[in-house]
Amino acid sequence: MTRGKFIAFEGGEGAGKSTQARLLADALRERGLEVVVTREPGGTAGAEAIRALLLGTDGDGWHPRAEALLFAAARSDHVERLILPALERGAWVICDRFFDSSRAYQGGGGGLSDADLRDLHRIGSHGLLPELTLLVEVSPAVAAERLDLRDAGNADRIGGRDAAYHAKVAAAFARFAAEEPARFALIDGDGSAEAVHAAIMAALGSWLP
Amino acid sequence: MTRGKFIAFEGGEGAGKSTQARLLADALRERGLEVVVTREPGGTAGAEAIRALLLGTDGDGWHPRAEALLFAAARSDHVERLILPALERGAWVICDRFFDSSRAYQGGGGGLSDADLRDLHRIGSHGLLPELTLLVEVSPAVAAERLDLRDAGNADRIGGRDAAYHAKVAAAFARFAAEEPARFALIDGDGSAEAVHAAIMAALGSWLP
Repeated sequence: MTRGKFIAFEGGEGAGKSTQARLLADALRERGLEVVVTREPGGTAGAEAIRALLLGTDGDGWHPRAEALLFAAARSDHVERLILPALERGAWVICDRFFDSSRAYQGGGGGLSDADLRDLHRIGSHGLLPELTLLVEVSPAVAAERLDLRDAGNADRIGGRDAAYHAKVAAAFARFAAEEPARFALIDGDGSAEAVHAAIMAALGSWLP
Repeated sequence: MTRGKFIAFEGGEGAGKSTQARLLADALRERGLEVVVTREPGGTAGAEAIRALLLGTDGDGWHPRAEALLFAAARSDHVERLILPALERGAWVICDRFFDSSRAYQGGGGGLSDADLRDLHRIGSHGLLPELTLLVEVSPAVAAERLDLRDAGNADRIGGRDAAYHAKVAAAFARFAAEEPARFALIDGDGSAEAVHAAIMAALGSWLP
């Protein structure tokens, strides 16, 4: 059995990642592949329970180090119980956010060092990285419009942080893509869902079976 | 303001740690000290929510790496929001289990390396260690009798693991004490609560104000 491919979508809030993950999954299934679509934080029962702790808006919230440990714990359960078994049976896994989100949010936004975040990922999840990371970039105006359509005034604990935080997150994502061009594809997410999907299929290019 | 002292109780299930923590707190309060008694996992609202995830017996449980990350996350919240503020205002903190429990349970029992557990503790909790760790050792027969009295058939997810697991945990605690004799005091926990308390007060010796 050939091991499946692992593709992550990354980007800020309102970039259209979950819509594009579904469209990509449909296109891969039409080619006869088994596809698992999942998301972080979450994807397994244990990780979804941690997600509720992380994103709920009750209580005092988490300081950045505790937040990073909780994300790493959720990812560890997700990798062990869903992602690795799927890849090993030959399925393709499409994940809405993965480790680079921790680097961008708890690192770029929250101030943890990239070395510490990599240690957490090594300890929790064998340092697993996607073969391809689709970084969907949208202009702030488009992101704001999409977030308004989705749930105005109903942001979760992290999505609801201020513009300065989200600007640091976006800058961090752009830096990661520049540092590892072979693992990242930059996708212009400002167009229609169909146009963005076409750009993603073009980026997958030679990968497609 | 003189910084307070941080004392941890460690040992297996049924060693009498929580009873002894309360007796020690009473004795220190009689000497005019502010004393905070707390426990792990838990001690703050966030950490108690993580405790419920860790020790609850619903669902599939956690594999050792996710378990270690969750303990580190709970400890991070506890250290940041309760232990460090208390020490800084001069209170003495008595904690029923701390980092050495992670080393003994997720390391000795669960197979994580001590280096990885130390990395998690450094990232989450500045590597904070107690000034003194009271390792309460009881014979297996005494531990079994106390656990029967407490809640027969009602063990939590970790306390309910098999005898081989708990034997590895006990061996790990003994090894830590041998490696760091200045930080550990060995307490024979087999006697009456009063006798064990007297041994603890003797071990504190020159520390007592």
